[in-house]
Amino acid sequence: MKTFALILLFLLSVALASGQPNEDRKRVESDILKVMDAQTTAWNRGDIDAFMQGYWNSEKLVFASGDDITRGWRPTLDRYKKNYDTKAKMGTLAFSGLEVSVLSKDAAVVLGSWALQRDKDNPKGKFTLIFRRFKDGWRIVHDHTS
Amino acid sequence: MKTFALILLFLLSVALASGQPNEDRKRVESDILKVMDAQTTAWNRGDIDAFMQGYWNSEKLVFASGDDITRGWRPTLDRYKKNYDTKAKMGTLAFSGLEVSVLSKDAAVVLGSWALQRDKDNPKGKFTLIFRRFKDGWRIVHDHTS
Repeated sequence: MKTFALILLFLLSVALASGQPNEDRKRVESDILKVMDAQTTAWNRGDIDAFMQGYWNSEKLVFASGDDITRGWRPTLDRYKKNYDTKAKMGTLAFSGLEVSVLSKDAAVVLGSWALQRDKDNPKGKFTLIFRRFKDGWRIVHDHTS
Repeated sequence: MKTFALILLFLLSVALASGQPNEDRKRVESDILKVMDAQTTAWNRGDIDAFMQGYWNSEKLVFASGDDITRGWRPTLDRYKKNYDTKAKMGTLAFSGLEVSVLSKDAAVVLGSWALQRDKDNPKGKFTLIFRRFKDGWRIVHDHTS
């Protein structure tokens, strides 16, 4: 009976040790995908301010694209508003192939594809997003888009 | 005298609590910059195999550039060897503006610029590198270059 109890205890330990991180990982993935879902929904109703809620509201936010680096939440917002100043230019945004890699309890990376469906063209590319967990949830702190 | 000892103990605790992470951070930064230094040195003597030692030797390595994603250490090596098959094409590589952000004890991000000095042109761009710490040191696990 004692052996049986020991085996149970061992199995419980293994379950706790291996199961918990998996649960955490799934929770992180789900929380991050919700932020990105909210971004596309906001974009597709033409609301860049709401789209920008997915980004860390800090002057330390990094947005790299091509050979340019934009620093800070406000300049990144301004950049989006300048480049997408009409609903036609914004088009319909879709993310695909999202792969979330959890780096620590408060950091994760998302690799994915973006595509804009527009009347005149369909630009697309890849992005690497670094998310960090803040008191009010996960936010992008670093975006490298190509 | 007891008060003095208590104050000393307090100051020591503060120093240990705040100083240690800073030391760790500097050490991580220095370790990562050494890996990148070794990469440019290898590149500039025409040794792509040695340059690739900075990357995680895994099929899970991610290399994103433009709208392409290359997966795995070997395909990334092959991509470099195909695109830079002569010393003239390799030119002289320099990294600049490197900013290391430590995410956890075993993960960090580097934002920086790359430039190739060549006879016919001088291509340049930005990169975001995600480094992880392995038993044998820090390695790039994800490279997004634009």
